[in-house]
Order: sequence, then C-alpha cells, then structure tokens
Amino acid sequence: MEENHELQPSSIIIFGATGDLAKRKLFPAFFNLFIEGRMPDQFNILALGRADKNNDDFRKYIKENLILFSRNQAAIDTHWEKFQSHIIYFRHQIAEENSYIELNTKLKTLDSEYGVRGNRLFYLSIGPDFVTTISEHLKNTALAANPTQDRIIIEKPFGHDKDSAIELNKLLSSSFEEEQIYRIDHYLGKETVQNILAFRFGNSIFEPLWNCKYIESVQITVAEEVGVESRGGFYEGTGALKDMIQNHLLQILCMVAMEQPASLDSGEIRDRKVDVLKAIRRIPLDQVDHYAVRGQYGEGFIKGKNVKGYRQEDGVADNSNTETFVAIKFYLDNERWEGVPFYVRTGKRMREKQSYITIQFKPLPQSTFSGGKHELSQNKLIINIQPLMDIRLQFMTKKPGLTVQLRPVEMVFDYFSCKEDSPEAYETLLLDALEGDLTLFMRSDQVEEAWDVVKTIQEHWEKTPDTSFPNYTAGSSGPQECELLLQREAHSWKEIHNI
Amino acid sequence: MEENHELQPSSIIIFGATGDLAKRKLFPAFFNLFIEGRMPDQFNILALGRADKNNDDFRKYIKENLILFSRNQAAIDTHWEKFQSHIIYFRHQIAEENSYIELNTKLKTLDSEYGVRGNRLFYLSIGPDFVTTISEHLKNTALAANPTQDRIIIEKPFGHDKDSAIELNKLLSSSFEEEQIYRIDHYLGKETVQNILAFRFGNSIFEPLWNCKYIESVQITVAEEVGVESRGGFYEGTGALKDMIQNHLLQILCMVAMEQPASLDSGEIRDRKVDVLKAIRRIPLDQVDHYAVRGQYGEGFIKGKNVKGYRQEDGVADNSNTETFVAIKFYLDNERWEGVPFYVRTGKRMREKQSYITIQFKPLPQSTFSGGKHELSQNKLIINIQPLMDIRLQFMTKKPGLTVQLRPVEMVFDYFSCKEDSPEAYETLLLDALEGDLTLFMRSDQVEEAWDVVKTIQEHWEKTPDTSFPNYTAGSSGPQECELLLQREAHSWKEIHNI
Repeated sequence: MEENHELQPSSIIIFGATGDLAKRKLFPAFFNLFIEGRMPDQFNILALGRADKNNDDFRKYIKENLILFSRNQAAIDTHWEKFQSHIIYFRHQIAEENSYIELNTKLKTLDSEYGVRGNRLFYLSIGPDFVTTISEHLKNTALAANPTQDRIIIEKPFGHDKDSAIELNKLLSSSFEEEQIYRIDHYLGKETVQNILAFRFGNSIFEPLWNCKYIESVQITVAEEVGVESRGGFYEGTGALKDMIQNHLLQILCMVAMEQPASLDSGEIRDRKVDVLKAIRRIPLDQVDHYAVRGQYGEGFIKGKNVKGYRQEDGVADNSNTETFVAIKFYLDNERWEGVPFYVRTGKRMREKQSYITIQFKPLPQSTFSGGKHELSQNKLIINIQPLMDIRLQFMTKKPGLTVQLRPVEMVFDYFSCKEDSPEAYETLLLDALEGDLTLFMRSDQVEEAWDVVKTIQEHWEKTPDTSFPNYTAGSSGPQECELLLQREAHSWKEIHNI
Repeated sequence: MEENHELQPSSIIIFGATGDLAKRKLFPAFFNLFIEGRMPDQFNILALGRADKNNDDFRKYIKENLILFSRNQAAIDTHWEKFQSHIIYFRHQIAEENSYIELNTKLKTLDSEYGVRGNRLFYLSIGPDFVTTISEHLKNTALAANPTQDRIIIEKPFGHDKDSAIELNKLLSSSFEEEQIYRIDHYLGKETVQNILAFRFGNSIFEPLWNCKYIESVQITVAEEVGVESRGGFYEGTGALKDMIQNHLLQILCMVAMEQPASLDSGEIRDRKVDVLKAIRRIPLDQVDHYAVRGQYGEGFIKGKNVKGYRQEDGVADNSNTETFVAIKFYLDNERWEGVPFYVRTGKRMREKQSYITIQFKPLPQSTFSGGKHELSQNKLIINIQPLMDIRLQFMTKKPGLTVQLRPVEMVFDYFSCKEDSPEAYETLLLDALEGDLTLFMRSDQVEEAWDVVKTIQEHWEKTPDTSFPNYTAGSSGPQECELLLQREAHSWKEIHNI
C-alpha cells in the first residue's frame, strides 16, 4: 500500500499464458497499466505455453482477446503496436527441467539485451497441482534465486484445508523467501475493499464508533447471480466454504475488524489482519449446525429466466453434497468486538449479484424520541462493494411537515460520481507486485489461520451430508435456515437487491 | 414539539391585520393550514385595523396578497370561497379601552355562534411600542383571562437590552401567565433548524461524537444578501447584534449545544436551551474587541450589480455607527464543550444568502495515514439551513486509482430530494400556537439570558464608536477582522458560497 516504490526493469513470466485467466484478466491488466504509463520503462512479458507458436500468432490471439475483455477499447488502436513488441511467446514444458534451463538462457539473453539484471515476476496462472512442480524446478535452476528481485505470484486455492496449506507453504518456503511470494486474492484489489482502511483510519469520526459499544452486528454478503457455469467438475471438489468464505469473506472481515495499523507498512497491516483471524472464536465441532448454514440451489427463475439446479449442471453428481451457499455467524474474542456477531454469507444463483458490508449500529438506549410515538430505525452504514460502489449512511431526520415525525433517510457517497475510471483489481495487484508491495497479498500465516477458522465446519460437513439439498431455489436469497441464524439473535439480513 | 394536541375551536385576533407581516406571512400561513386541513373545524380570524373597512373590501385585499405571497397558488381558486368566510374585519383603536370592550362583545357573539367558548389566539403583529398598551387593555377587559385557552403571540424585539427585556416580561406577566405567552422567533420554525434535535437525538451515532473530545469548533453563519431595504430608519436603532445575534443565532447555538432533553416536553426543551445560554462564558467588558467583531457595509457589487453603502441608505445617518455585521467567538463553560469555540457571524449585503452550521471535527491524532504523504482534511458536518436545505458529511476516502491517495469527499442528504413540500416557518409556529405547544417559542428566561450574553458587547460598542466604518464592501464576506478572529486559533470560516 505504500507509494514510494520504484518500477525497475522487469521480465514477467506467465506460466499458463494460453489459459483463461491470462486472456481475460492478465493481459488486459498489463495493457491498461501500459497505456497509463504504469509499466516499467523496460519490460517484457514472456508468455509460456506448451504448444508450438510463434510470436505473431500469439500476439494476434492476445489482441483478439483484448478486444473482447479490455476496458480500454479506444486505446487498442493507438497503443497495440508498441505493447505487442513486449510480448514474447516461449514454448515451455512445465514438467521438464530442461525447459527451465532454456528459460533461464532466454531470461539471461533478455537481461543482457536490457543491459540490466531486471526483476523477474513469475505468474503461476496454472492449476494448483503444478505449483509444486514449478516451484521445485525454479529452485533447482536458480531462476528465482534473488529474494529482492524475483517474485512469484500464486493464485488460489492455497491448499484445500489447514494441513494441505501448511504443506504447500512449507514447500514454497523451501524454494523461496516469504517476501518473494505474492498469494493473490483479487477481492483485496477492489477499490471499494481497499477503501475500507482509508475510510476507517483516514477519518476521526468513524473509529470512535467502531466497536462493541456502538455496533450491534456486522454483515458481509457476497451474492453471486451466476451458477457454476462450465466449472461444475471443479466446483464439485470445492464448494462455497473453500471457494469464497475461507479467502474473500474472511479477508473482508479482517479489514472491517482489524485494529489500527501503526503505519501502512505491509508487514504491519498483515499482522493486524492475522490478529483478527486469531481472535475469531473457533466453532466447536458439535456446534457447527448452530453457527453455520449450508445450501445448494435447486432449479428456479432469475430475472424471469428458468435456470437449472446445481445437481443438473454439467460435471455435477446427481446426489452431490457440495454446498453452493454458506452463512456463518462468527464472534471475535477481543475487547473491541466483544459480543458483536459477524454474519457472513455467500452463494451462487442468488437473486442478484451484490456484495456489501452492513454495519448495524445499536438502537438508541433511552431517547428524547423514544416512548412509542416515534419508530426509530437503527443507524446503518452500508459499504457497497459491487456492482454498486458506494457508502451509505442511514439515519433519522424530521420528516418535513407540520408535526414532528421522524423517518429514516440515507446519505450517499458514490465512488464514481465524478466519472473517474476504476482500475480493475488485477491492475492494482499486478502493479503492486511489480513494485514489490506485499500489502494486499496473503502471507502464509494469513492463509493458515483462515483455514483454521473454517476447519471444524469443513470437518463436520464432510462427515455429515445435508439431506435437505437442494434447499434453496435459484433466484432466492438462500435457504430458510440462513434467515433463522439471525432471527435467533433478533437480527435480520439487509436484503439483497439494488436500492 | 409534541403531537397529541387537539385543535379546539379558535378565534384568532390579529392586531395590525392591515400591516406587512399579516399580508405576507400570517394570512398565507393560515390559508395553507386551512387547505391542508390543519385549522380547527371552527375558527374565525378577526382582523383588527384602525381604518373603517367592510369585510368584503378586506377579504378582497387579502386575496390579492395571497396571489402575491402564497406558496399554494393553485389552491386559491378552489379554497378561497370557504376560507374567506372565516375572515372578519373589525375596526379597532389600540389605545381606546372602549374598543376592547366592543371587541369583547364581538368575541362573545362569535363564541355563542359556535355554541362553545373557543380558544382565543391574540397575534400582536404591531410595533413593540404598542405591546404594553394592548397587554394592559386585554388585562383590564379580561379578554385573555383564561390561561388554558387564551394565548398571546408576540413578535420580536423582546426588549432592546437585558433591563428592558426584564421590564417587558414583568409587564407581560402582570397581565398573563407565562404559558399564555408565545414569543415567536421564526428561525426556530424552519425545517432545517427543527431537524437539529431529530438529527442529534434520534440517532445513536452522532451523540457520542458531539463533544469537545471530537469537535474542534462550531461555526454558525447567517449571511444575508439584502441590505436594510426600506427599513433604514428602524435599523439605525437596532443593528445586527440585537436584530440577529441575540435571537436567531443564539437560538441555533442552543440547539447545537444543548444537552439531551429527557423528553419532548416543551418545558424540558426550553430548560435545556436556557442551560446553554447560562453556560456561555460572558465576555468581560475590556475584552470585547478580542471576542467580537462588528462591521458596516460600504458601497459594492453583488452579482454584478452596484449597491449602496449602508450610510447611503434612506433613513440612515451619514456618520452612522450602527453595525450591519457581527462575528463573535463564544466559549461554553461546561463539560461537553470545554475549550470548543463557537463562532457565530451574521451580516447584511454579504456575497450570498446562506445560513449554515459547520461542525468541524478534530484532526486525526496519530494515524495510519499520517506522516506527510497523505494530506488529511478534517471531518466536517455541514447543516445547511437556507436556501440550501441539506446535511453534508465531509470525510476522506481512497481516490480511485492504482496508488493509495486519499481525498476528501462529501455525503449529502437533501431534505427535499423526495420533492416534498416544506411548510413555511410561520405555518409551523402558528399551528403550534393553535395547539398550545410552546416548544419553539421563547420563554422569558431565554430572552433575558440571551440579552445577558450580549450585554457587555452592547455596552462596549455603544460607548466606543467604530471609526473604521464602513469596513466591508457590499458583496464580500465581511470585514477582515472577522477572518483574523479565527486565524488567531488557526481556524478558518467555511466560505459563504453555494456548493
């Protein structure tokens, strides 16, 4: 999150450069950084793939995909020629040591072409099974041996439970220093998520209210409208708890709940996040059903269109027990958050795509306006993450008119009312990696603690299939039990819909 | 401010019914209350004037003025016929006891016409010199002898200094009970002013911040664009301190600074306001120049139009020492406001008509974002009273973009974004008087304490003419000394202009 980083000459080496992520996100992000003058003066993107391709073919393929996926269509004509010259296709076999030796030679050639030994940024845009292989070869061939210049970006999943995460981290740490490893969670690159820290700690008026004395509950909702699409086979082995809760939602929770970092130093900020994960009360194995709700969507309607149930999706078992929806009530055992429930929920095939945080303040204890005549809504702060990107404060005012009646109203700050362009999360994160800023990336202990938080839930659900599946219709707000989870505390979810 | 009042049959007796206030404000207000069904089922407006007029002539005159001044033009056609039948003109001589005896007979006739002894609401829409005369005659003829049914509305000025206010109150209390006396300050009827209490005490999130721990200063600005118009002769004997500060601005200050009232009971609310006035630290006579600034406008330009200086206005002396501008720094000696300056200012011929309250919060003590790289604006809450009617919260957010830069943004709640119609202050206040709700009216001790607050300033200024007059140009933000008043504390005024 610091700003004073210098952009040094860089080779960006993309493993899996012919894959989906590369064409949809990575190349468009590098292209946008390029046209905004945010790439190093000297850089090249070494695109690694199994197939035999020449530069021209590969560049043509990237250009076609820029036209499909870039948010800067207008710039393609003007900037493509210059940009493409930085892209070099390199045929590479992940499992063959020899291929890494050739890669090393290639990189050295590029180093000497630039007259400098630049940074190397290895982007592992490949399935988790290959991370081990690539790491070991990189180590053996000393391709990323300089801890201050060589960086590795890894995509989730970072393991599939606590033990496997520890094992993966061990393996990575045998090849690289922790400061070289950039575990990416694209949610943390979103403007609205990054703003949480600025909002909390760049103002004097919110932090005094940001604790159990004034806050009644916190809600985090990440609702997706899409189903599993073509990823049914992958999703069967994953589910919403691993795919969303363990990473995105717990990371957002950390930003809402963390103590004030003394500085913007990445170590400091990541320390404060780990503190939150450690403070989350672990749910005892025999109480999982009391704190957590899982769901799986059946057939339904979304915006008038009939959609399949999860078990009818390609690659999904007829009797699948994979959850596509999770809601959990967490408590944090620290002074700031004593007794404040943090409700998180996420699901596929919800009625709308909506991600938001709701800070629900406590009711007025005893008020001038209490006593039956005035129905006072509790104050709420809503931080919309996507697709709405705004902050809303709900409070009471006098209703204009001759009698004193109160009514809830809303103050809104819209991030983009000034029509500024918002960078994509990947642009932010790739630039941070080029600059060597680890703040928004996951450190090994963050990953392990997050797995520890969901450990008992995983264990209980694996042991105990949910016989009620499918238990929510596509296009709804999730299973009934999700509402009950809050009703037991006399709370209720802020509804999922565009306001 | 309470709601459960019943509207009883009422006779409304207007002294000075042919005057300016009656035609511009009172009749339009009664008319609007009438079309909104807010008048009692049985009422009459007894319009008192010196001249010999018949009902038809007077009603015609009122209709003509409704067309000029009512905010409900469309309703005139549909409702005038019914409304006019309630208006009765009555020839009356203020100084003649006999005339009150006739008035009594008239009122009794009306009482018996209705078959009930209704409320009587006497509106003294006359100069201050006549208040004594009318009060004594009302007393002598027992016209307002029933403390639960008869009410007297009085317009400011309520005296011209502390002693005269005490004398006036004594006189009034020899004729009426305090609960019968409705001293009107139309500023308190404004929606945006009334809302201050709802905003502060109808929400749980503002009151914890509403004290010297979090607030650095409070500013109240009431800027007028008009000059003294045709009222130069009157204004010469008044000036901004008596005309604006002693009443409107101190009353607004009371609403911002008061402790939480236990209920909406009018006595309770007025008690809490008096507490504030008592807590205002009195400015020693020899330090007036350190705490207060006066000004008088010279010739200048407002919105491109050349306007006269005050001394060139009709009825104003060539060497007039009357102030048309006042700024004062107050401190309150209580726990909540220790060390927090309350800056108030008001003036005529300012650059724009703008009334607003600014709550300036303290800077962040030590912050994640401090250390030079981030310039943090202090949080501000702006309550716009008129002509803007909104509440704005200024805070810091991350500027959208690839680096972490903070910038100040604004959240806005606009009272009338829903296109609701706002009642005029007089409608609110007249309805309150009809209902017997004293909350928004000034009690005798409020008036006297407010005079006491400005006593030393009055004395010093009367003794010491300001030789720098005229010291600000029409169309400016007032004299230079007004800026210096805040600069000494390293504060600055929120500028007067439409945002």
